[in-house]
Amino acid sequence: MRTAILIFEKLTALDAIGPYEVLSAVPGWEVEFVAPEPGPQRTDSGATALVADRGIGEVSTADVVLVPGGEGNRPLLDDDDVLDWLRQIDAGTRLTTSVCTGSLVLGAAGLLRGKRATSHWLFREQLRDFGATPVAERVVEDGKVITAAGVSSGIDMALRLVEKLAGPELAQAVQLGIEYDPEPPFDAGSPEKAPEEIVEAVRSVAAESDAWLGAQR
Amino acid sequence: MRTAILIFEKLTALDAIGPYEVLSAVPGWEVEFVAPEPGPQRTDSGATALVADRGIGEVSTADVVLVPGGEGNRPLLDDDDVLDWLRQIDAGTRLTTSVCTGSLVLGAAGLLRGKRATSHWLFREQLRDFGATPVAERVVEDGKVITAAGVSSGIDMALRLVEKLAGPELAQAVQLGIEYDPEPPFDAGSPEKAPEEIVEAVRSVAAESDAWLGAQR
Repeated sequence: MRTAILIFEKLTALDAIGPYEVLSAVPGWEVEFVAPEPGPQRTDSGATALVADRGIGEVSTADVVLVPGGEGNRPLLDDDDVLDWLRQIDAGTRLTTSVCTGSLVLGAAGLLRGKRATSHWLFREQLRDFGATPVAERVVEDGKVITAAGVSSGIDMALRLVEKLAGPELAQAVQLGIEYDPEPPFDAGSPEKAPEEIVEAVRSVAAESDAWLGAQR
Repeated sequence: MRTAILIFEKLTALDAIGPYEVLSAVPGWEVEFVAPEPGPQRTDSGATALVADRGIGEVSTADVVLVPGGEGNRPLLDDDDVLDWLRQIDAGTRLTTSVCTGSLVLGAAGLLRGKRATSHWLFREQLRDFGATPVAERVVEDGKVITAAGVSSGIDMALRLVEKLAGPELAQAVQLGIEYDPEPPFDAGSPEKAPEEIVEAVRSVAAESDAWLGAQR
């Protein structure tokens, strides 16, 4: 089982590293990081970089492909090289997946047409632009496409992926191995649960810092 | 608020990236990745690397220091340069923290003597070697030292750190920003909760692949 994680400049690191940690814990499973051009890809905050050993030109198949989010995936929405690559990879995958706004890139590649899908809650409605039906769930499966909600949801998605492809015992072993027994300090992890003033505060900070989100308001 | 995350060859990426994503989301907070020598540090699986922009020789203070886990931190347990650095940084921190087996490195630096602390469940008892009292909790605070359990627990720890230093509203906003509303597929994230045969399976795979863990059995 070989998973290709597409990374790029200004990605959100946890979107990629959450699922990577889960998938690479399965004995015999391989994960590789692939970027438009190989080499270090700076994260959105700029504090570090994740290294891609291979460029998209060097990888033509994968059992699973995963696209993370981050402001750096906006330019990919009309990058024909990347979108063609995704379509080519998708033709041979067992599962095609995304975390956070990675689903918008799958959408731009035409892979979500007529499908139920999710994304980071701030961007979920934009899935309609690609013919998808936005769903307010943490992990959404439609055929072989699995999309996950914002940032941290990739851990839940990847564990479900392991359950699906390798069985519940292995998924439980991986969950125990990464000691995933979450204790979030607040019940504030989704816009349905967080206090309204917190939701509005996050929405307005996001709109200010993200021109693309601001434009849709 | 400046956090220094110590990274190294063969680290467990999620140990570092979980807290990084939380702490870098706080407006005005800065995170930097520091390694014994600057440059890319391969993760334990080898699939990618995290880049440290600075070496320990270039960083002499931080408000928060965080040490992640991974098999690559074993050589640090008797690396005087790293241990001296940690003691020096700790002298000026507001909080000194670890995720997973990072607590063993804090212990080796003498920073856990007489303190309650935690680690990945497989390694927790080894904290006694450093004069600490192991505690089976996800996040353990004792004075200014906060230690977290295995791998994924760094997210919970970092959110508590934000609550402590910046208040509950900001912590909730960050939790909502990274959409941390976990839905683990199984209730198997700790040895107390997972089925016994799963615990034994993980324990024996770990002992086989980790000479250091095997030696203590």
